[in-house]
Amino acid sequence: MEIEKNYRINSLFAFYQPLLTAKQNNYMQLYYGDDYSLGEIAEDFGISRQAVYDNIKRSEIILNDYEDKLHLVEDFDRKQDALNEIRSYAEKNYAKDDTLLNLLQKVSYEPKREGK
Amino acid sequence: MEIEKNYRINSLFAFYQPLLTAKQNNYMQLYYGDDYSLGEIAEDFGISRQAVYDNIKRSEIILNDYEDKLHLVEDFDRKQDALNEIRSYAEKNYAKDDTLLNLLQKVSYEPKREGK
Repeated sequence: MEIEKNYRINSLFAFYQPLLTAKQNNYMQLYYGDDYSLGEIAEDFGISRQAVYDNIKRSEIILNDYEDKLHLVEDFDRKQDALNEIRSYAEKNYAKDDTLLNLLQKVSYEPKREGK
Repeated sequence: MEIEKNYRINSLFAFYQPLLTAKQNNYMQLYYGDDYSLGEIAEDFGISRQAVYDNIKRSEIILNDYEDKLHLVEDFDRKQDALNEIRSYAEKNYAKDDTLLNLLQKVSYEPKREGK
């Protein structure tokens, strides 16, 4: 459950992190990306553990709010499934057609930036 | 030039309109989507033409700002080109493979909502 939630937040963060402030990005990256504890982040930045917690919780709300409006993660997952289906089909039926396989390879839905 | 600018704003609006306020959405829809004039919108809402103009200009800045950060329109155009290339290739070489053509048809990059 904890891991699943983490994965979810990481996905949201990967897509919407350019919309967070530098400070929000910092804390989210450290907490979710680099697995720092709240206490460690608090110490590094010379603020209270509660302040870090509040900032991260606030970021999570913002990320979920963007997803509710733009659903980039949901779209990504859906399109990725469709694309995987085509790739499997092409690899099975046209394994020798490098042109087709290369063209399919070129279609990527990844967000350009890395969230972590 | 005017038409090209319009097309650009329409694209941005289609992708990011859920991030605008209801009022911003209204004015943008009327001005760009439904081709109302600034004066007509001003009259409908009982405000000054300048206020409508300012609101729309502000919306354009917001939309461009989101595109600078998330570049959904740029990504869409790029992926659409790649997808069109695959579809052309498949239609040319595998015109009788309905399964492949249907699978390709299923992969759409359109934003879910309509901007206009």
